[in-house]
Amino acid sequence: MKIYDGGRAPNPRRVQIFLKEKGIEIETQQLDLNTHEYRSQEMLARNPTATVPFLELDDGTVISETIAICRYIEELHLEPNMFGNTSLERATIEMWSRRIEFDFFLRVAHSFRHLHPAAEVLEGEQIPDWGRKNQKLAIEYLDILDAQLAHNQFIAGDRFCVADITAIVAIQFLNQHGLRCRKKVCLI
Amino acid sequence: MKIYDGGRAPNPRRVQIFLKEKGIEIETQQLDLNTHEYRSQEMLARNPTATVPFLELDDGTVISETIAICRYIEELHLEPNMFGNTSLERATIEMWSRRIEFDFFLRVAHSFRHLHPAAEVLEGEQIPDWGRKNQKLAIEYLDILDAQLAHNQFIAGDRFCVADITAIVAIQFLNQHGLRCRKKVCLI
Repeated sequence: MKIYDGGRAPNPRRVQIFLKEKGIEIETQQLDLNTHEYRSQEMLARNPTATVPFLELDDGTVISETIAICRYIEELHLEPNMFGNTSLERATIEMWSRRIEFDFFLRVAHSFRHLHPAAEVLEGEQIPDWGRKNQKLAIEYLDILDAQLAHNQFIAGDRFCVADITAIVAIQFLNQHGLRCRKKVCLI
Repeated sequence: MKIYDGGRAPNPRRVQIFLKEKGIEIETQQLDLNTHEYRSQEMLARNPTATVPFLELDDGTVISETIAICRYIEELHLEPNMFGNTSLERATIEMWSRRIEFDFFLRVAHSFRHLHPAAEVLEGEQIPDWGRKNQKLAIEYLDILDAQLAHNQFIAGDRFCVADITAIVAIQFLNQHGLRCRKKVCLI
C-alpha cells in the first residue's frame, strides 16, 4: 500500500493528520505540486482524476478522494476511532463532517482558488466576486464553530474525530492565505 | 422517527429514492419550500441549519445532511446495501459518491443557484459568471459519467448504490432547469 502525497496542500494534510492520529505510517511518494507531477503521464495512468492524495493498493487498485482514503484506513486500523463507534455517533460525525466540508472547508478553498494569483493554474478562469463571497462566508463560519465548541470539547462531541481534522486544515489554510486574500480584496 | 421533507428539491429527492430502494416508509412531514417553512421558528428550533431534509429521532435528536441520514438508515435497514459490502467496495462507493457530489451535483446546484431568478432567495448575491462556469463544467461531466458507464453497469460497479442516486437527481435537476439556464445564458 502506498500513498501519493501532495505536501502542504489541504487534502494531503487531512490524510497526513489522520495517519498521525492513527499512529501508522504508510509508504509515501511525494508529488511535486509546483511542477504538476500529479498530471504527469505516469500519474494520470494511476489516477486519471489528477487529484492528491491517492492511495494505491498492492494489486494496483487506486482509491482517491480524501475521505474515501480515510474510511478505508479506518477499517484496517480501527483505533483510535475517527468516524464514530455507534450508529448515532457515526451519523453525528458524518453530519458535522459534511457541514464543515461544504460550509467551511470548500469556502476557504474557493476563496483561495478565486482570489490568489497562484491558484489560476488550478482553477482556470478565476471569478473574484465568487472568491470574495466565499471568503466572507468562511470567516462568518468561524462564529458557528465557536458556538459549537462553546458546549462541546470537539466539533462532533467529546472526542477528536475526522470533522475536527477538516476544520483544523481549513483554519490553517485560511490563516495562511487569508491575509493575502484580504489584502487583495483591499487593493481591488 | 420522522423525516421533515422538502418535496422535489434535490436533497429531499435523494433521501426519498434511498428509502424507496430500501423499501421502507418513515413518517414524513412535508415542509413548504415556497413559504420557507424550514425557516419557521418551530423548524429552526429543531434544525438550526435550516436545511431539508432532516431526520428527527424519537428522543428529539436531529440528524441533518442527506448522506448522514442515509448512512443512519442503512445501519437500521442493511439490505439492499447502498454503501458497500466490503472495505474495498465501501471505499470505491465513497470515492465515486464524492466525485459525483463535488464535481457534478454541486456544479448543477451552483448553476441553478447563480443563474435562476427563483434561486436568489436561497443564494443571496448571485454571481452569473460562476453559474455559467458551473453549468459548463456540469455538462462536461456527463462525458465522464458516459465513460464510466461504458464499462460498468452502474457508477461504482455492477450494482445500484448511493452514488447512482446522487447522479440521477443531479441529471434530473440539470434537465429540469438546464434549458432555462441555457436560455438565460443566450439572452445575457
